[in-house]
Amino acid sequence: MTPPMTLPMTPPMTTSRTEQVLALTTQKWKYRSTTAHVIGIVFTAIAVGMLLCAVLEWLSTNRDTNALLLAAAIIGGSGLGLWRFSESSELNTSQVFGTVGWTLILTTLAGALPYLLAGTFAGNGTSEEVVNSIFESVSGYSGTGATAMVDFDTPGRGLLMYRQLTQWFGGMGVVVLAVAVLPFLGVGGLQLLSTEAPGHSSDRLTPRVSETARRLWLVYIALTVASALILWMVPGPSLYDAVAHSLTLVSTGGFSPYGESISHFQSSLVEIIVLAFMVLGGVNFALHWRALTGSVGAYWRDSEFKSYMMTLALASATVVTLLWLFDDLSIRQALRAGVFNAISLGTSTGYSNASGSGTFSDYVTWAAGAQFVLLFLMVVGGCTGSTAGGMKMMRIQVLGIATLRSVRHAQTPRMILPVRLGTMTVPERIVSRMVGFFLLYVLLAVCGTIVLTALGSHLDTALGASISALGNMGPALGDAGPTASYSQAFSQPARLVLAGLMIIGRLEIMTVLLMVVPYLRYVGVQPR
Amino acid sequence: MTPPMTLPMTPPMTTSRTEQVLALTTQKWKYRSTTAHVIGIVFTAIAVGMLLCAVLEWLSTNRDTNALLLAAAIIGGSGLGLWRFSESSELNTSQVFGTVGWTLILTTLAGALPYLLAGTFAGNGTSEEVVNSIFESVSGYSGTGATAMVDFDTPGRGLLMYRQLTQWFGGMGVVVLAVAVLPFLGVGGLQLLSTEAPGHSSDRLTPRVSETARRLWLVYIALTVASALILWMVPGPSLYDAVAHSLTLVSTGGFSPYGESISHFQSSLVEIIVLAFMVLGGVNFALHWRALTGSVGAYWRDSEFKSYMMTLALASATVVTLLWLFDDLSIRQALRAGVFNAISLGTSTGYSNASGSGTFSDYVTWAAGAQFVLLFLMVVGGCTGSTAGGMKMMRIQVLGIATLRSVRHAQTPRMILPVRLGTMTVPERIVSRMVGFFLLYVLLAVCGTIVLTALGSHLDTALGASISALGNMGPALGDAGPTASYSQAFSQPARLVLAGLMIIGRLEIMTVLLMVVPYLRYVGVQPR
Repeated sequence: MTPPMTLPMTPPMTTSRTEQVLALTTQKWKYRSTTAHVIGIVFTAIAVGMLLCAVLEWLSTNRDTNALLLAAAIIGGSGLGLWRFSESSELNTSQVFGTVGWTLILTTLAGALPYLLAGTFAGNGTSEEVVNSIFESVSGYSGTGATAMVDFDTPGRGLLMYRQLTQWFGGMGVVVLAVAVLPFLGVGGLQLLSTEAPGHSSDRLTPRVSETARRLWLVYIALTVASALILWMVPGPSLYDAVAHSLTLVSTGGFSPYGESISHFQSSLVEIIVLAFMVLGGVNFALHWRALTGSVGAYWRDSEFKSYMMTLALASATVVTLLWLFDDLSIRQALRAGVFNAISLGTSTGYSNASGSGTFSDYVTWAAGAQFVLLFLMVVGGCTGSTAGGMKMMRIQVLGIATLRSVRHAQTPRMILPVRLGTMTVPERIVSRMVGFFLLYVLLAVCGTIVLTALGSHLDTALGASISALGNMGPALGDAGPTASYSQAFSQPARLVLAGLMIIGRLEIMTVLLMVVPYLRYVGVQPR
Repeated sequence: MTPPMTLPMTPPMTTSRTEQVLALTTQKWKYRSTTAHVIGIVFTAIAVGMLLCAVLEWLSTNRDTNALLLAAAIIGGSGLGLWRFSESSELNTSQVFGTVGWTLILTTLAGALPYLLAGTFAGNGTSEEVVNSIFESVSGYSGTGATAMVDFDTPGRGLLMYRQLTQWFGGMGVVVLAVAVLPFLGVGGLQLLSTEAPGHSSDRLTPRVSETARRLWLVYIALTVASALILWMVPGPSLYDAVAHSLTLVSTGGFSPYGESISHFQSSLVEIIVLAFMVLGGVNFALHWRALTGSVGAYWRDSEFKSYMMTLALASATVVTLLWLFDDLSIRQALRAGVFNAISLGTSTGYSNASGSGTFSDYVTWAAGAQFVLLFLMVVGGCTGSTAGGMKMMRIQVLGIATLRSVRHAQTPRMILPVRLGTMTVPERIVSRMVGFFLLYVLLAVCGTIVLTALGSHLDTALGASISALGNMGPALGDAGPTASYSQAFSQPARLVLAGLMIIGRLEIMTVLLMVVPYLRYVGVQPR
C-alpha cells in the first residue's frame, strides 16, 4: 500500500501516553519475539510426537509411559504458552540466524527431558546422566546418530521410538519446519533457505518459501512412508522395526532401536533396501520433487547428483578392493561390508551392518587405507538440499573447479575463467563464500581434534569424531567406531564438545557465527 | 641500446641458406637448452662440494674417499660438459617451470651417487639400497631431513658432511641458485621468484633479480658462518660438529651426522643456540637483509614476522602446558622438550633433542594433544622468502583474513572488503591463488595419506609423514617419529611416494603442475 499522494499537510496526530497504555491493555498482551514464537511452535510439535510415543509405550512395554507423558506436558505446555503469548516481528538477518540457532539449541535441551525423566542413562542425577541425555538429544535432533547408549534393552519401545523421532524431526524437520514457519509468521525465510538448505538458485522451485517447504515435506513424508512399507513387507522387520528405521533412514540420521543397528535383522535384503533409501536421502529433495512430478531424467541432468553417485560408486569400489586385498575377507564379505559402510557414511547416515565389535563389517578393524576412504566420505557428505551432512557435494565440486582454475591462472594470469557447474556459472561471491566455508570447516575439525586429543583421545579417534560430528555422520574411527558407545569412548567434556560440533555442523557453521555477532557487543567487541 | 634513428631505408640484408650453415659450422656448436645449461652449472657446483667433502674424508676417517672422488668426477664431468655445450634460450613461463623442476629432480638423482658408490645403505645393489639412496638425496636437497639411515657409524665423516651439504645446497641453494643463475643467463627470473620464493611484492629489494639473489646469499652465508662460529665456541661441539650442523641449521634442513641429532651434545646451551638459529632460518631473508643494513625495527614492522613469532610462542606454550599436565614430566623437562620440538617443527627444521627412542623428548610418546599441535605447526611452516617449508605464514594469514571476510560477507553481502595484510592490500588474484594452493595442499596431503595407509601404514603415521614430507619437515608422527628411520617405518613404494611429496612441496606444488602441462599433449590431453 503506497500512501495517498494527496495527504493534507497537517502535522501527524500525536497520541497521548495514556491513550497508548489504554491501547496496550485492551488488546491482548503479546511478547514481540519471533524466536519465542518459533520455539513455541516447535515445542508443541515435539510434544505431539512425545504423546504418540507415550501411547506406543503404554500399548507395548509400558515402562517409560509416565516419563514421556510428563515430558510432553512440560514441553507442550511451555510450547503452547510461548506460541500463544508471543508474536513474530520483522527480523533483520542477524536476528533470523539467532532464531534458527536458539530454536535448535533449546529444542535439543528440551529434547533431553524424556531421557532424564525415564532415567535412560545410568547415573541417577549425576553429571554423567545429564551429559549423556543432552548428547543423545543433540545427536538426534542434529541428525547425527552418534549414541551414548550402551543398554538398548531397558528403555521401553515408546522411548526408543521417541529417540528415532528426534532424528525425523531433526534431519530435515528443523530446517524445513523453520523455513515453513517463518513465512507463515510473515517473515521472509529466503535468507534462511539460502543458509540452511543451500540449493541451486535455479532449483528454487517456487519463489514462495512456504510452498517450497510444503513440497519438500511431501517428498520427505512420501519417502519415509515408502521405506516403512517396503521394510515391513520384506521378511524380518516388524511394523515397529519398519517405522522406527524409516524415521532415521530418509533423514540420514542413523539411530536404531537396536544396539546392533541394521545387522539386527541379519538380512541382505533389508540391507539392500536400507542402502537404496540412504542414497535417496542424500539427494537434493528438490530433484526428487522434479523427478516425481516430471521426468526421471531430471536426476541425470543434475551435475551434483552425477558427482554424488560417482563418488559413492568409486568410493565403494575402492573400499571393497582394499578390503579384499588387505583384509582376510572373501569377495562376498568385502562387498557386503564395503558397500554398506561406504554408503552409510557417504550419505552421512551412520547405520552399521556389523553384527558385533570386531566382526568383518566393523570398519575400525579394517586396514587403514579403507578407513581413510570412509573418513574422506565423511568430509564430503551428500547433496545440497538433502538431509545429509558433511560439506556437501556441490561445494566440493566448486572447490575442485576453483582449484583447477588457480592452476590455469598461474599459467595464463590474464585469462578470465568463470567457475562453471553444469550449465550454470557460479558467481565469484558464492565461490568466495564456499571457500570461506571450507576453511572454517577445516579449522573447526582441527580445533575439535586438538581439544579431543588434549582431553585424552587418540589421534584417529579424535580426528574421526570431530569430522563425524561436524558432518552429522554418527560413527567415527578408532575407539568411536560403529559398534562403540560415545559414553565409553569420550570423557564428559569431550562429549559436550562433540555435541557443540554437531550443532555447528547442522547449522552450516556460518549461521552459528552470524548468530553470535549481535552478542559481541555485550563482551565489548563491537564488530567494525 | 636504442637503435639509431637515422637508419637508411634500405631493405634488410637477406643471408642465403649456405651462409647460415657456414655461420653455424664456424661458430662453436651449442645445444640450445636453458635446462641443460642450468643443470650443468648446478652439477658443477655440487661436484665442487663433493670434492671438498672428499678432502675432509681423506684427512679424517678415509673410508669413503674414493666414492666421493668418483661421484665428483662423474657429476662434475657431466656438469661441465652440459655447461660448456649448451646455451640458454628465451623461455616461456612453462619452460621456466620445467627448468626448475628438472633441475631439482636430476640433482636429487645425481646426488644419490655418493651413497650408492660408498654403499652407505645396506643391500648391495638391491632396490632397497637404490630407494634409500634416492630417498636420502631427495630428503637432503629438498631440505626435508627425513632419513633412511640407521647406522651412523659406518659412513665416513666426509660422506656425512656431504649429506649435510645437500641440505645447505638444497634448503635455499636450489632456489636462490636458480634465481641467480637464470638472470645471469639472460633470462628474466622474476616469474620464477614469484613462484619459488614468494615474498611481499614490496619486499622485492631491487628490481634486478641477480642483485636480490646475491643479497639473500650473503644473508644465508653470514647466518651459516655465525652459527658455525658460535656452536664451535661453546663447550661441546667440535669444529666438525659446528660446521656440519651450521649447514643444516639456517637451511632449516635438520640432518645431523649423529643418529641422536642435537641430543648428541647433551647440552642445554647448544640447544638454545640451535633454537635461535632455527627461528632465524624461518624468517624472510629479505627482512634479515633490511635489519642488517638498516634498523632492527624492520622485523616488528612486518606482519608476517609478528604472526610467525606469536605462533611459535603460543604453540610452544601450549605444548609445554599440555606436557606438564598430561605427561609425567617436571616443568623443566616439559620446557626443554616442548619448546625445542615445537620450534624445530614450527621452523620445518626437524632436529630432535630426544636422547633416544621413548625418552621424554621423543614426541611420539607424548599425549595426543601435544602431538597434534606439532602436526598443526608442520602444516603452517615458516615465513615466505625463508628456507622453511610448510604452507608459509603469509598464506595462512591471507587465508585467515579471507575466512573472516566470508563471514562478514554473509552478514552484509553488499560490502566491498579487500584483504589487507599490514599496510598492504592483497589483490584478489593473489587471494584466489593462495586459496588454490591451500586446496591443492590439502588434496595432496589427503592423497598421500590414502596411498600410505593403503601401503600399510597406520593413520597417524601416514597423515604425519604426508604432511611432514609435503612441508619439508623431516620427522613425522607414529612410527616415523624423531628417533625413527624412514627405511624401517615405510615400505619401498611408500618411501618413493614420500620423496615425490618432498619435491612437490619444495617446488610449491604449482611449479610441478605447470611443469607437467606441456607434456600433457604427449598423452593426448591438450589443455583447453
